[in-house]
Amino acid sequence: MAQGKLLGLGVGPGDPELITLKALRLLRSAPVIAYFEGKGKRSNALASVMPHLLPGQQRLPLIYPVTGRRPSSPFDYEGVMAQFYDAAADVVATELAAGRDVAAICEGDPFFYGSFMYLHDRLADRFETEVVPGVCSVLASAAVLGTPLVYRDQRLQIISGTLPEAELETMLRGSDAAAIMKLGSNFAKVRQVLDRLGLLGRAHYVERATTAAQRICPLAEIDPDTVPYFAMILIPGKRWRGR
Amino acid sequence: MAQGKLLGLGVGPGDPELITLKALRLLRSAPVIAYFEGKGKRSNALASVMPHLLPGQQRLPLIYPVTGRRPSSPFDYEGVMAQFYDAAADVVATELAAGRDVAAICEGDPFFYGSFMYLHDRLADRFETEVVPGVCSVLASAAVLGTPLVYRDQRLQIISGTLPEAELETMLRGSDAAAIMKLGSNFAKVRQVLDRLGLLGRAHYVERATTAAQRICPLAEIDPDTVPYFAMILIPGKRWRGR
Repeated sequence: MAQGKLLGLGVGPGDPELITLKALRLLRSAPVIAYFEGKGKRSNALASVMPHLLPGQQRLPLIYPVTGRRPSSPFDYEGVMAQFYDAAADVVATELAAGRDVAAICEGDPFFYGSFMYLHDRLADRFETEVVPGVCSVLASAAVLGTPLVYRDQRLQIISGTLPEAELETMLRGSDAAAIMKLGSNFAKVRQVLDRLGLLGRAHYVERATTAAQRICPLAEIDPDTVPYFAMILIPGKRWRGR
Repeated sequence: MAQGKLLGLGVGPGDPELITLKALRLLRSAPVIAYFEGKGKRSNALASVMPHLLPGQQRLPLIYPVTGRRPSSPFDYEGVMAQFYDAAADVVATELAAGRDVAAICEGDPFFYGSFMYLHDRLADRFETEVVPGVCSVLASAAVLGTPLVYRDQRLQIISGTLPEAELETMLRGSDAAAIMKLGSNFAKVRQVLDRLGLLGRAHYVERATTAAQRICPLAEIDPDTVPYFAMILIPGKRWRGR
């Protein structure tokens, strides 16, 4: 019997209409739809493809053992997560070995900070695999903010807000353009760094761009306690006017 | 009479199937399709939407006054380009003022190194404007190479190959993950920098990802004279295995 194919499908940043024609076609071709999900939460990727699913497609949720803040040590977060990804890959491999294609749906793009990468790294050498790129949250955020992001030879840095303050400061000093992701509880730290570097005036804030819950707000007015993980700060490159 | 709407549509990296449902819907809703094009060349954005256009949609090419290598000084490249973008914006504004929506089609994403930004900067305060993000070439390249791009808190740098050698070297030293765009005649310089930094072993090369002319080749085998502008070098972040 032929093995199934692993499909890593970027479904875009949230708006169901921001999926590509190709991802939609492959999504509908697969008997099994796999997705990562927080315990008691609902997968963002699943929410954005809901209007597109066909009756009879099997759902295969892969439930994270830890969601949100990490338990403090001696809890072995790294080890627990590695074991979880091993087990998730085994579950998907069982479907593939039985000849069923599995569409792993990914918020944004599959290879851009996505948990799909851990499936890919464990399965791509054993099963036929196809990855369909998607619209990432950085570009979706620039679009809804109406802020052109990078001109000409400007560098764009995409940075995780989880990094230590000093590292963020080094990276952002003299920055052309930057997107700072994974804010959540890191927001206050990031805002402080931007303040110190004199970048607050150039920075824009948006939550859950292109979804029904999208929120755009001046950075100064944000209550750090309300900032979700899926929020972003954009520092667009300076306009080039030709002189 | 109501003014027309300016639509900046990301049409994706080349494969006509990598346009989003939303960009396709708005593309087909517009009576006028505008695009930048090199003299005697064919717009990549137009090529990728050709299968989607409807009969009767008017095409509005905006022809660059200079393509490829810049004439040497005293030719005022910056001034000529600024004047060109002013004139292009005027042409588009005439359509909008006459009540016709204009879909400006953009390779990849409209705000990611796209000439559309110059129209946006000149028109968005005078006309209703909507920007639809698209799949950018960086993520398309990672997908066709099958190389996950950034894990966890890794930084992704997107860098133009047109920058001076010393600047490239500073940016790429100790890099987590990087994409180097706009290669063309800058290829030999970039490869030399990667060699000096010991990054050649981690670097992947691809031309015109997802188009019919896509070419994937080991970096060592590339003849610099054959490298097109739409080629990319990717340095994926190191795999995270959980330990």
